[in-house]
Amino acid sequence: MPPMVESATGFTLGCDHCVSGSPNEQAAFNFEAAFGQMKLKEGQGQEKSNAWGRDQKRGEYNTKSHVVLTTHPRRGSPIQIKWGATSPAERGPIIATLSQPRLRNAIGTHNGSYSVYRSIAVAAGKMDPMFRPDLHNTAPPVMIPPNPSWFDPTKIVSMDPWGHMIVDSYGSHLKEGVDIRPTIAITKAHIQMLELVEAMEKGRLQADGNILQSDGSCVVTKAAIEHVWYLPGVAQRFNITEATLRRCMFEQTGGMFPELITRSDLEVFLPPIGGLTVYIFGPAEYLQDPSKVCTVRVHDECNGSDVFGSDICTCRPYLVHGIEECVRTAQNGGVGVIVYFRKEGRSLGEVTKFLVYNARKRQEGGDRAETYFHRTACVAGVEDMRFQELMPDALHWLGITKIDKLISMSDMKYNAITGSGIKVLERVPIPDDMIPADAHVEIDAKMYAGYYVPEEKRAIINDDFVKQSKGRGLDA
Amino acid sequence: MPPMVESATGFTLGCDHCVSGSPNEQAAFNFEAAFGQMKLKEGQGQEKSNAWGRDQKRGEYNTKSHVVLTTHPRRGSPIQIKWGATSPAERGPIIATLSQPRLRNAIGTHNGSYSVYRSIAVAAGKMDPMFRPDLHNTAPPVMIPPNPSWFDPTKIVSMDPWGHMIVDSYGSHLKEGVDIRPTIAITKAHIQMLELVEAMEKGRLQADGNILQSDGSCVVTKAAIEHVWYLPGVAQRFNITEATLRRCMFEQTGGMFPELITRSDLEVFLPPIGGLTVYIFGPAEYLQDPSKVCTVRVHDECNGSDVFGSDICTCRPYLVHGIEECVRTAQNGGVGVIVYFRKEGRSLGEVTKFLVYNARKRQEGGDRAETYFHRTACVAGVEDMRFQELMPDALHWLGITKIDKLISMSDMKYNAITGSGIKVLERVPIPDDMIPADAHVEIDAKMYAGYYVPEEKRAIINDDFVKQSKGRGLDA
Repeated sequence: MPPMVESATGFTLGCDHCVSGSPNEQAAFNFEAAFGQMKLKEGQGQEKSNAWGRDQKRGEYNTKSHVVLTTHPRRGSPIQIKWGATSPAERGPIIATLSQPRLRNAIGTHNGSYSVYRSIAVAAGKMDPMFRPDLHNTAPPVMIPPNPSWFDPTKIVSMDPWGHMIVDSYGSHLKEGVDIRPTIAITKAHIQMLELVEAMEKGRLQADGNILQSDGSCVVTKAAIEHVWYLPGVAQRFNITEATLRRCMFEQTGGMFPELITRSDLEVFLPPIGGLTVYIFGPAEYLQDPSKVCTVRVHDECNGSDVFGSDICTCRPYLVHGIEECVRTAQNGGVGVIVYFRKEGRSLGEVTKFLVYNARKRQEGGDRAETYFHRTACVAGVEDMRFQELMPDALHWLGITKIDKLISMSDMKYNAITGSGIKVLERVPIPDDMIPADAHVEIDAKMYAGYYVPEEKRAIINDDFVKQSKGRGLDA
Repeated sequence: MPPMVESATGFTLGCDHCVSGSPNEQAAFNFEAAFGQMKLKEGQGQEKSNAWGRDQKRGEYNTKSHVVLTTHPRRGSPIQIKWGATSPAERGPIIATLSQPRLRNAIGTHNGSYSVYRSIAVAAGKMDPMFRPDLHNTAPPVMIPPNPSWFDPTKIVSMDPWGHMIVDSYGSHLKEGVDIRPTIAITKAHIQMLELVEAMEKGRLQADGNILQSDGSCVVTKAAIEHVWYLPGVAQRFNITEATLRRCMFEQTGGMFPELITRSDLEVFLPPIGGLTVYIFGPAEYLQDPSKVCTVRVHDECNGSDVFGSDICTCRPYLVHGIEECVRTAQNGGVGVIVYFRKEGRSLGEVTKFLVYNARKRQEGGDRAETYFHRTACVAGVEDMRFQELMPDALHWLGITKIDKLISMSDMKYNAITGSGIKVLERVPIPDDMIPADAHVEIDAKMYAGYYVPEEKRAIINDDFVKQSKGRGLDA
C-alpha cells in the first residue's frame, strides 16, 4: 500500500471521482485532462482566471477559458499579513478582491453573503468584475484610533482593526493599483424610535438638545463591520487546531471554499455571513478612557422582535432598554455602545427558530420554561450557535477595557467579555415591565439555566418557578 | 497544441498550480498524489468523506482521512429532482444535508449563511455532524397549499414550494432514514409595534379584537423561507446561460462551491445568503381567492431604519405604512402580506451603504437627490443589486394572482411582479407625513428616476425639483 500523502495543512486531498473504474469516466477524464490542459496556460493563466471580461460576441461572461477550481501555495507570494503588527504597513493590507488573483492574500471575498448577489450582478452583465470603487469622501467622520488591543494577535481575531483606515494606511498600495477594500465603514446618523419618545413622555428620559432631541431623535456614530477571520486565532478561541477549523468550515458547509484546505499559507478568511454594527452614543474618544462611565449592550439579531415586535421574546424591549441606558449614560458625561450582531435565532436561522416555536407550543404540557432549551436542542442539535467567543473583538477594537453597565443577563456574553480581559462592574437585567406577554417562558428559562438573576429574584428562581412559567398556545 | 477539453457544463477545468515548473512543486505534488491515493478509497471513501465522527483520542474532528475537494457526476445518481412537477413524489425531495453524501441532489446546504456557524459548532465539538432534527410538532399551524404556480417550473425558481411540507410529502423517505430538512417554516405570532398604537390614537386604525387588539398587538401568520435556487430557472430569469450563472457564482465569490462547476447534473443550489419572511394579516386561504382584496408590501431589509429608525431613508416608515394597510385590508374582509427580504443596503451590504452615506454628504454641493444614484454607483459599481427578478416567487408560492394595493413606489418591484403575471390594481406611495426629515433626498431621487409618482405630484417632479432636494451634512 502506498504511503498517505499529506498536504501542508496536514490533510490528504481527494476528488471523489478521479478513481480507477470510475462510473463516470467522462467527468474524470475531463477533470484530469483539464489539469493537463492547464500546462499551456502557465504565465498568462493566472490574471485571466478571475478577471473575465465579457464576451463581446455572446454578450456573456466568457466561458471559453479554463476554470481554476482551487489554488495552491506559490513561491513569491503576495504581500504578507502579520496579524497583530503595530503598524498597518507591517501588518500588511488584506487583499480579498478578485480583480488581481495573484495579489490575494485572503480566502473568500468582501461583503459577506452579498458577494453572491455581486456575482449575479456580474453574471447578468450589470457589473464590470474589474470595477474599482471611488473611495473619495468615504472616510470615517469620527475616527476609531488604534489601541493596544489591535497589537495583540489574540485580542482581535474576527475583524480587521484597520478595516476603516484603508486609504490612510495603504494609500501607496492603492496608488500602485492594488485593489484593497474597506471592511469597516463609519458614519453618523440620527435615529428615531417611538420607544424613546414614550420614555420621554413617561419621564424616564429628558431631551438635552444634544444627545437626545426634543422630538426623540438621537445623534449617533455608527460603524458597519465585516467579518475578517484570522484562522489561527479563531481556532485558538475554540481551543481546536487550525486544521480542524478549516476542515469543518469546508466540509460542514457543503464544500465552501476549497482554499480553506489547499491554501494553508493564507491565514485570513472573509466568511459569507452577516456582519455587525456598532452604535455609539456620546463621544467615541471616551471609549478608550477608563475614567468615563461606559454602558454596553451586545445584541444578537432577532428580526421577528427587533423589527416586528413579536411578543414571544424580549429582544427588541431589551435592545430599547439598552439604548435608553446608553442615552442616559451619554447625557451624564459617559458613553454608550450597542453592538448589533447578525445572528438570527441564535445563529440557527429563522426557519429553525419557527420550527422550534411550533414544537414548544404544541408539546405536551404546552410551552414552558422547563423545556425551553430542550425543545431547541431537539430541532437544532444545539441550544445555541452564537459563539460569543468571537463577540468581544468589536469591544477591543473600540478600545473598551471596562464596562460600567452591561445591559445583558446572558452568562455566555458576560463570560466571553470578562474572559477576554474587559472588566464588567454591573450587569443590568431587563426591567420586568418591559417583558412582553408571551416572553416570560424565555427569560425565566434563561435565568434558571444560568443567566444573571437580579438579587431580589434569587430566592424564587427554583424548580417550582421554572415549572410554573407557561406560554401561550399556537392557536391563541 | 492539444484540443480544449470541455466538461459537461461546457467549462474546461483547471487548478492554478498543477502546471509544469510550478514554483511550488510540493503543493502540486501533494495534490496530484492525493488524487492517486484516492484510488484506494473507492467504495468506502464516499460515506466517510462527509460523515466525520470525532476522533476519540484527540477529541477532535477527524483529520486523518482524505478530504474531497469536489465531486463529479456519477451513474446511479440519487433521487432525481423534477422541478415544477405536480406532485411532491414526482418532484422529488431536495437533499442538501451532509450526513449522506451519496444521496445529496443539491449544491450547498441548509440555513443559508448560518451553515458557517453550524460548521464551527461541529469543529468546536458542540454538535454531532450526524445529528438529525426531531420534526415532531413542527408542522405549519396554517397551511399554504399547492397552487398552479407550483407546477410551472418557470414561476418559482428561487425557493422550494414544498419546503414546509417535508414530513407530509416525503414521510416514507424520512422513515427510510433519508436526511431531508424543511426549507420553509410557518408559525403564528402576536406582533406589537408602537407605530400601530400611535395609528390607533390618531384614529387611522381601530381595534377589532381579532386582527388588531386594543393594546395594538396584531395576530399574524408568518413563514420563514430559505433560498433554494433551481439554476436553469434562475439563469432564465436573467436571460443568461446556466453556464454563465454557475461560473460567475463560483469565480466572483472567490471560489465558493466548486460543485457549481463540476456538478452540472445537480441543478439545485442552496446559497449561503439570508432568506425572507412572509407576514400574513387575515386568513391565509384568501391569498388564493381573487375575489378577496389583497394588499402587499415587499420590503427589503434596512437594519439602520427598520430597527434603529435612522431618518436618512423611508424604510421603516414605509414598512409600517404597509402593515397599517395590511391590517386595514384584513379588517375589511381581505388579506394583507408583508414579504421581508434580507437584502441590506440594496444587497450591497451595510459597509458599502455607510461609505455611500459619507460620500453623499461630503460631495460638493452636499447631499442631494440629483446625485443620489450616481454616488452609489461610484462606490458600489451598480446602483442596486437586489435583483427583483427573483422576488415574485414568494407571491406565487402564496398563490397570489392579483394585488389590489401594492405598497411600494419601486418601478423595479412593480415591473418584476406584473412581469411575472400578477395583476397590480393600485400602487400606494408613502404618505408625505411619514417621510423622515433627512429622507426626502432618497424618495425624491427615486421618483425622478422612475419610481411611481402620485398623480398630484407629476407636475412638480422635474429637473428643478430634483436639484432642490437637499439633505443634512455629516456634522449636523
